[in-house]
This record gives sequence, C-alpha cells and structure tokens, in this order.
Amino acid sequence: MNPRNSLNFSGGPGVLPESVLRQAQESVIEVPEVGLSVLGISHRSDWFAAVVSELETNVRTLLGLPNDYHVLFLQGGATQQFSMVPMTLLRGRGRPAEYLHTGYWSGKALPEARREGQVRVLWTGETDGFRRLPSDAELCFSPDAAYLHYVSNETVEGLQFHRVLGRDDVPRVCDMSSDFLSKPCEAERFSLIYAHAQKNIGPAGVTVVLVRDALLKDVPDDLPGFLDYRTHVQSHSNFNTPPVFAIWVVLLVTRWLINEIGGLARMAELNRTKADLIYNQLDSSAGFYRGRAATADRSTMNVAFNLASPEMEKRFLAEASGAGFSGLSGHRAIGGIRASIYDGLMLPAVEKLVGFMDEFRRRQRNVRVSETSA
Amino acid sequence: MNPRNSLNFSGGPGVLPESVLRQAQESVIEVPEVGLSVLGISHRSDWFAAVVSELETNVRTLLGLPNDYHVLFLQGGATQQFSMVPMTLLRGRGRPAEYLHTGYWSGKALPEARREGQVRVLWTGETDGFRRLPSDAELCFSPDAAYLHYVSNETVEGLQFHRVLGRDDVPRVCDMSSDFLSKPCEAERFSLIYAHAQKNIGPAGVTVVLVRDALLKDVPDDLPGFLDYRTHVQSHSNFNTPPVFAIWVVLLVTRWLINEIGGLARMAELNRTKADLIYNQLDSSAGFYRGRAATADRSTMNVAFNLASPEMEKRFLAEASGAGFSGLSGHRAIGGIRASIYDGLMLPAVEKLVGFMDEFRRRQRNVRVSETSA
Repeated sequence: MNPRNSLNFSGGPGVLPESVLRQAQESVIEVPEVGLSVLGISHRSDWFAAVVSELETNVRTLLGLPNDYHVLFLQGGATQQFSMVPMTLLRGRGRPAEYLHTGYWSGKALPEARREGQVRVLWTGETDGFRRLPSDAELCFSPDAAYLHYVSNETVEGLQFHRVLGRDDVPRVCDMSSDFLSKPCEAERFSLIYAHAQKNIGPAGVTVVLVRDALLKDVPDDLPGFLDYRTHVQSHSNFNTPPVFAIWVVLLVTRWLINEIGGLARMAELNRTKADLIYNQLDSSAGFYRGRAATADRSTMNVAFNLASPEMEKRFLAEASGAGFSGLSGHRAIGGIRASIYDGLMLPAVEKLVGFMDEFRRRQRNVRVSETSA
Repeated sequence: MNPRNSLNFSGGPGVLPESVLRQAQESVIEVPEVGLSVLGISHRSDWFAAVVSELETNVRTLLGLPNDYHVLFLQGGATQQFSMVPMTLLRGRGRPAEYLHTGYWSGKALPEARREGQVRVLWTGETDGFRRLPSDAELCFSPDAAYLHYVSNETVEGLQFHRVLGRDDVPRVCDMSSDFLSKPCEAERFSLIYAHAQKNIGPAGVTVVLVRDALLKDVPDDLPGFLDYRTHVQSHSNFNTPPVFAIWVVLLVTRWLINEIGGLARMAELNRTKADLIYNQLDSSAGFYRGRAATADRSTMNVAFNLASPEMEKRFLAEASGAGFSGLSGHRAIGGIRASIYDGLMLPAVEKLVGFMDEFRRRQRNVRVSETSA
C-alpha cells in the first residue's frame, strides 16, 4: 500500500480508508461475483441493483433513518442541490425560504435559491470573516418559511454546528457534504439532507440525498426529469446511467463504517479524538498556531488555522510536504492551513501531524532564539 | 488480466481497453507523479489541471477541432444535455428547433426540448419500429430553425447515420454518445456535440461537450450556474468538483487512441472490420440471425439482431454466457440480441463471437435435423 495516502489531509476529494482503496482497486479489473471490471458493468445489471439496494440499506442502518425517507444517489454535487432544492420547494410557493450564511459554501447556495423565489438570510457571518456561528439568541425562525436551509459544516472555514437548528413545523434542509456519516446526525429531524461523496464517503461524482416522502407532494410539474427528485425516486436512482464506480465505492465505505468501525457513534468518538489532538496543539502553542474558528464552533472535520505570517505558513507547508503530508493548504478563498480529518484519515496520521506541528514550532522558536542571540 | 473483460459486449457502460484498465487500477492506489490515490487528489491540484488540459488537447487532436470550440467535461450524462441544449438555444427564441426521432434515445430528448419551446419533429421512425433512418429525400430542413438536433448512432436499435445532416446555416447539435471517438466525425460542421463517456471513451459519470464559441452569444441569463455552458467554459470544467476519476480514465483512453491505435481514421477501419464480421455472419446465416437495421443504416457500434423466437434467443444468450461472453442481451426496450463493439472491444473478441454464432447456428440446425428425423 502507498504510505502517502494515509497522510492525505486534503479538503476534498478526501482520503478513503485503505481497505476501501484496495477493494476499489481490485474491482477495476474484476468484481469477483460478476467476473468483469466495475467500469464495464451495466447499470441495469442485477449486480448494480444489489449495490444500490445494499447501499441504501446501509445508509438507513447507519443513520437509523425512518422508512418515509427516500435515499437517492445523484450526480452534480452539492451545487446541483443548491438549485434542485429551491426549484422543488421555493418556486411558485409565495413564501420565503430562510437561509443561513455561515461561510463559503452556504454563500454559494444563496444566488441559486434567489433565482427561484424569495430568500430571507437570517444571519450572516460575512462581516466577521466567518469566524463563528450564530447562537440560538441570534436566530429568529419564522413559522411561515417554505423551508430552512443551512450547511452543517463549513469546509473552508472549519465551522460546524453541534446542534440541530430551526423549528419542527418548518422543513429543515441541510447541506451535510463535509460531515455526512462522520457522526450520528438526527436525520429524522430534517426533511432533506444532501451530501456529495468526496469528503467522507467516496470519490467525486455522486451525491447522496435523503428526502422525506411528504416533501415531494407539491413538486412543480415543469421540472426537467433529471432535476425532479420524484424521477429518481421512481427509478431507484437509475433514471439515466448513474456513476456506477463512485456509487460502488460509497458502498464499500458504508461497509467499512458498519463492519470495521462499528457505526457512527464510534466514528464520532474517533473523529472527536482526532480533532481534539490538533485543537489541543493549537491551544497549547502560545499563539504560534492560531485557530480560525471560535472554540464553540470548531469543526471535527476541518481544522483551519494560521501561523504568524504568510511566509511562515509557506515554510510550514513546504516542510510538511517534505515530511510526507499532503493537502494541508487552506482553501484558495482564505489561504492559511487546513487539516481535513475525514472519516478515512486515521488516528496515527493525526498523531504524526501533531508531532510534526510540535516539532516545527520548537524549531522555529529555536531559530528565533538563535537569530536574537546572534 | 481478467479474460472476461475482453468478451464484454455490453451496450454501456462498455468495455475499456486492457492497458487503460491496468493504468486506472494502479492509479486507485497511486498516481505515480503525485504519490496519492486518484480518488484523493484535489480537483484544484496542478496534476488535475494538467489532466484536463491534456485531455482537451487530445480531443482537439483526434478530431482536428478548430480553436473556436470549447471542450467541456460535465456531469449528468446525455440526459442533462437533453435539457441544457434547449435551455440554451430554444428558450425564449420564438423559433422552433428541428428534431429527428430515429430511435429510443432521440425520443428521450423530445419531451425535455418541448419544455423549453416549439419542437418540430422532421421525421419519425416510430411507425416502422425504428428499423431504418430517413433518406435525404425524406428530410426538409428549414432555414428558420433555431437548431437541428439528432442522434448520430441509436444505441438501442443499432442505427447509425453515415453522413452529416442538415443545413450549414442552421446550427447542428448532435448526440454522439455511442459513436464519439469511434471514427472521424467532421466535428467542424456541428455547433454542439455531446457524448457521455460510458460507451467508447470511459466510465459512467462524465459527459464531453464540444461547443462553438459563437453559439454561446445569446444564452439566457436566468440559468442555474451548473446548467450554463458559459460557467463551465470560464472555469475550465472545474466550476464545482468534477468527476476526477472518470475524467482521468477518459484521458487514458484518448492516449490509447493516439499512441496505441494511431488516431480515429485507423480506429474507424478497425471498427468497420469488426462490424463487417458480424454483419456478414448475419447475412450468411440464411435467416437464422435477422439483423434489425436496414442495411444502409447499420451501426458499426451496436449490432442488433433477432433469432427465430424468444426461446431461441434465450438459449443463445445462455450458451454465450457459458462460453464467456457478456452483455449480449438486447436493450430492455426491444429485447433480442445486441453485440456492442465499441472502441475497446478488440477484433479477436469479435472473431470469437462470430465463431460462436456460426457454431451455435450449425448446432441448432443439427438439432432440428435430428428432431425431424427422430
């Protein structure tokens, strides 16, 4: 196995578990029970129908999802959902949708929603540079909203909600792209959850949508087939050729979560342990490493931080790369450093990173001391 | 290597060349120049920018594509293009688009176009059961059409146009999903060409779009970002996370076409040789195998045929499967047998299939003779 994969802290597409990569690799030449490359198996085959069916069951099992939810596997990423959600739930409704603007990705959802109807931005962190999330006291949810939309984990800024927002009488719609299947999420309190695969659960190219059946009662009838959730419900995510390989790898990840990890509560513990290690390193660095996010809103998936200067950050990234780490550059929108510690990034890799951070910090202090004494 | 892959006559996702599968397999663990799994490499990396750039160059080289065309790699399959094309070129234009209805897939494009404006169906083969394509004499193209849309190769029925249709003063839009990069296609005579990957050029999950720059001058401004070709042009197919793995495999296929096959003229010869072998077997079978398509419109990609009865077809498929062949069932819409012989399906596999067909036919004749004499 390639050791660099295990030290891949990329914000996405992210690292996948070693056992998943090994099975995915084998399947490119042969899926044993079919005898063919996964890349050449028909999406209308019994094998693929079983893949989708098992994957749906695994997602239900992991989340304890009630039966009145559909589990869909679509294309187009979260970006397509930024449009599909308001096309389905806002167009022609005459009621506003409520959106939270908590970072880069929730901001991307706004213009697409505004094309379809009235959008009420309940709170924005833009003036603060997206360094914290709103408290309950800052949010006033209306009972007349068409729905509430928010992003559970802001990948770029490293901000994560550690509670469910909104009212029970207004449908909650949540973009969980970067923390889906990283912990239990009280899925039954949401009407629609979407998450693209390329953080925790698979390669780029597939998006999971969980949608409560009751939400699809009044869908506009003028939507193109591929933008109508009902089309995908009726066809069991096989309306047109789905991304077979990506869906297959997501199945492998859910098997790993169930059989090797032992479920989402255990996954959450592991993710909390990994995150604490890095945040403790930030907090004990006497300001050498400066976490971006307010302490209460820190993400267990993306740890975003800065060093004293862009030059120091550049040196950190260069030395980290030399030590075998990848993907630690912050998102191009804000720069800095970001350690993404998705499900597939294992504890030993985090321990190694923290060791490197500690050692780098001491080395820089010694450089400063020797520069001062020189 | 797995021998069953080489005998995969699936209509799609289709077989890929052995050398491509081998490289794709290796890359799931490690892309050598990056040191990471292809599934965990950022779509914003220099490596992926180079993949897209080389792929674009390869497509241009293979097709001799002029510089005023954009080469895009999108999600959503041909189905998404069924909508994007009329959203871009028909919505609000006040002029009809002309469509040909030559089979299963061109029929799927019609309702999506009708959502966006007036559609004039110039010809339909529906009453004939889609067994032939129109002659020039049957087609009257108008100079006032917004565009002409047709499908170059009907995958289900095995019908292929062996000429370019339409007028030079009306934009030609062509769904080349199942014969793209199987032969030179006079791309410069089309304003927009689209093709999903999963026949000749890669795994399911990515769609190639070639679009002439002039066609994007008057695009409606109310389109969601991901449905606006201009968004993808401006972002070099990296507007939101693209299907990295699928695009990478398409690059491997284009390298194979250029370096191992020697270009599209040579690929066309090979495809013609493969198709002729099977059609000759049909024609010399004294009616035992009955080709679906009119001789002049026979596809070099999909050879659709019937046997005397559904029972005989079932026996044929069972014995073929036993002999190591896969994917020979006809499309669920029409049944029968279909041998799909895409670029990656090599001549020895076709020779083996023809040998099997010949032997099966003789065996059935002997069964009949012995049944008669019993």
